[in-house]
Amino acid sequence: MPKQTVEEALRHADINVDASLNRLFQLLRIPSISCDAHYTRQCHEAASWLANELSGIGFDASIRATTGNPVVVGHSKQAAGPHILFYGHYDVQPAEPLDEWESQPFEPTLRAQPNGETHIVARGASDDKGQLLTFIEACRAWKATAGRLPVGVSMFFEGEEESGSPSMQAFLDKFEQELLADVMLLCDTALWNDSVPAITVMFRGLLEEEIRVTCANRDLHSGAYGNAARNPIQVLAELIASLRGQDGKVAIEGFYDNVVELDSTVRDELLKLNFDAEQFLAAAGLSQSAGDVSYSVMEQIWTRPSCEINGIAGGYCGVGLKTIIPCSALAKVSFRLVDGQDPESIRSKFRSHICARTPRDCKVQFTGLTGSPASVIGPRSPYLDCARAALRQEWGCESVLIGSGGSIPIVSIVRQRLGLESLPIGFARADNHHHSPNEKYDLYTFQKGIRSWIRILAELSRCTTDRVEAEP
Amino acid sequence: MPKQTVEEALRHADINVDASLNRLFQLLRIPSISCDAHYTRQCHEAASWLANELSGIGFDASIRATTGNPVVVGHSKQAAGPHILFYGHYDVQPAEPLDEWESQPFEPTLRAQPNGETHIVARGASDDKGQLLTFIEACRAWKATAGRLPVGVSMFFEGEEESGSPSMQAFLDKFEQELLADVMLLCDTALWNDSVPAITVMFRGLLEEEIRVTCANRDLHSGAYGNAARNPIQVLAELIASLRGQDGKVAIEGFYDNVVELDSTVRDELLKLNFDAEQFLAAAGLSQSAGDVSYSVMEQIWTRPSCEINGIAGGYCGVGLKTIIPCSALAKVSFRLVDGQDPESIRSKFRSHICARTPRDCKVQFTGLTGSPASVIGPRSPYLDCARAALRQEWGCESVLIGSGGSIPIVSIVRQRLGLESLPIGFARADNHHHSPNEKYDLYTFQKGIRSWIRILAELSRCTTDRVEAEP
Repeated sequence: MPKQTVEEALRHADINVDASLNRLFQLLRIPSISCDAHYTRQCHEAASWLANELSGIGFDASIRATTGNPVVVGHSKQAAGPHILFYGHYDVQPAEPLDEWESQPFEPTLRAQPNGETHIVARGASDDKGQLLTFIEACRAWKATAGRLPVGVSMFFEGEEESGSPSMQAFLDKFEQELLADVMLLCDTALWNDSVPAITVMFRGLLEEEIRVTCANRDLHSGAYGNAARNPIQVLAELIASLRGQDGKVAIEGFYDNVVELDSTVRDELLKLNFDAEQFLAAAGLSQSAGDVSYSVMEQIWTRPSCEINGIAGGYCGVGLKTIIPCSALAKVSFRLVDGQDPESIRSKFRSHICARTPRDCKVQFTGLTGSPASVIGPRSPYLDCARAALRQEWGCESVLIGSGGSIPIVSIVRQRLGLESLPIGFARADNHHHSPNEKYDLYTFQKGIRSWIRILAELSRCTTDRVEAEP
Repeated sequence: MPKQTVEEALRHADINVDASLNRLFQLLRIPSISCDAHYTRQCHEAASWLANELSGIGFDASIRATTGNPVVVGHSKQAAGPHILFYGHYDVQPAEPLDEWESQPFEPTLRAQPNGETHIVARGASDDKGQLLTFIEACRAWKATAGRLPVGVSMFFEGEEESGSPSMQAFLDKFEQELLADVMLLCDTALWNDSVPAITVMFRGLLEEEIRVTCANRDLHSGAYGNAARNPIQVLAELIASLRGQDGKVAIEGFYDNVVELDSTVRDELLKLNFDAEQFLAAAGLSQSAGDVSYSVMEQIWTRPSCEINGIAGGYCGVGLKTIIPCSALAKVSFRLVDGQDPESIRSKFRSHICARTPRDCKVQFTGLTGSPASVIGPRSPYLDCARAALRQEWGCESVLIGSGGSIPIVSIVRQRLGLESLPIGFARADNHHHSPNEKYDLYTFQKGIRSWIRILAELSRCTTDRVEAEP
């Protein structure tokens, strides 16, 4: 791949950034919220939009139905050289709480900052619509200048990542052969900092449970029954309080039993990053970690499992006060899992823990939501080397290997099903407010992302086509 | 008062019960929810409706503005004999959860039961619209037959009882002289059972607090921050768990300090009732009391203070799961107080308890809602004797003196401000689902209530007009 060809693709991307941004805005305007069935139509709309865009740049693109939201698949195959599989997701988190947004979550806005930055503000701006478009726009630039991509590329975009990817297993069962490739690229991750790109080599797994505690057969008058009737909010509060010890550890028996401690070499690599825990907490308005003090904050969030209450509801919380003892209360609980923890085994231990502590006259109902194990990516691969070379060219510095406390189920699924190694390279920043009000993506990193992928595609063409098998 | 005159009034009430019921339905159709400012207009509408009804039966009726919902006042004065003050409230609790109602909460429905009973189903059917109408309809029967009431009567109906009567003090400041009377009657109470009427001689006080725990400056991604960021739902759960001991006692330091133990004579009276704790719990689908086991269930609900969580909310509880650590969580807490407990002192102890247990990086905000002390009514009064004689005539048995775990702030306010003893006599049943979905009032007790008040008004005319001062 002559250097001049790469430069032409980069120039094309730079000149046409407004058009790229315009396409991003189109996608951001579609409220493709996957966890709420009211937005199913919009999820389909986002899938159609993506399929059209892929077709427009010469991909053989189509929409594949699943039992949930559809998957968009596009191919641009080549006779020789490595074949790349690219993954992204077009679904987003709900926008609530709506009143904390400074602009409409699904009406993207460019907001100039005092420091000269420009923010693209919308739900999904970063997670994952802005990020996945960096790859599509990189392909567009190649097609527009060289007439073809440097390597064969297949893309697939799912619409249920924010809901734990429940349809992915069945989808891969059906289309496994079609998606065979040499390596998977994905972009749902972050930069190390504004000037240093990162490749994420570990993700935590995710296990979700809903728990409902029911006591009386109806809401009771708190005057008539107060003291005598068991209050399900009180019971639920006691159950939740029992999940964490004062030492910050998860207090479920056997929770840490099979946890694989981090490889010391990798741990040393991570420690070299000089993760600034104080700044990390301060960015969220906090000054003190709530986690297990025998681990650093970086380890707590990347390499240690957690238990979080994501939502709680019970009784009357409207204006004023309603003097009831409600009949039931609900909590949404999720666990971030690490290497060695089996989601279904943790689910079972959680339920046993709760049942053992549920008083008489109380009924506990569990609703098991999805679970996916953690994934750890092997640090040695020729594709990794090529990607790091490309990032070095674009950013003028060495990229770093980092961990992520988040969960990208597709990484472990693809490894198990297709035997494919993944290279998660993304251009988000820590302050992008993922899953929060006023989510944003930096216009600068949007452009740098497009440019980085242009270079990565060029570098990957140097790799041999031997399939890289995932480490056992 | 000749016996025949009473009989004529009773017959008139019986013959015209359908018209009485029709008027009740009119009032029930007005969603006069006081705790939610969205229903202010409907509260005014209910007040107007009542003033019109009082005028229609010859009362000098008017609506008095307060800083909250208006008070309806009506007078039917007489030159001689005792003067009675009657109190009721036209406001109701919110109807939520709406999906548990079998019919629309503000579209009253008559529902025939397999056992031959007929239920009037609507929010407020019993608490307090159905009950207060029994008194108005009794007055109507007297006016229609004898042309006048047996005693002088003033009525006042407030519109904020379900919100702790915040405007009552100021209202009484202004209209104290106008409301002077010999005794206050009120009807927001229950029968002992289907065939035995009761006069309620003790009410618990009520103290309301809202507490919001805030940790991070926004909702956080539970992958990015899970373990490290303090979770306000977890904190709130631990705070709530700390409010009650495993022994069922409220665990706030000094909570029981000034509690006046029940007078042993009154306690013996109450014990003679053979309160059926098992049946009381079973009616709510429960089998075991959650309260302090060193007291009987009857004592727990009538004579012991309690702490209840009436509502809790935080994070995302919609469809699916949103993987956030929310920035804040909220609980509505209320206390039922007994004789000797000062509401503001308990409020202060509660807040100290919470603050002492709030971890670093957490902010707790308290919103103090209303507080009213408990009230205990002296068991010796000529008005009480007259009322019991009337109830004996109507029900063919002796009435009983009982306690109530609920709170009727007006009883203590009127005692403090006007020096007036109260006689709380009501015709609700324990299974009327006060404050719950499918609230109902029995058509039978609605009729018996009207008849009972017709007789009580007649009997009260025998009393001397010496003002009965409240016991110190």
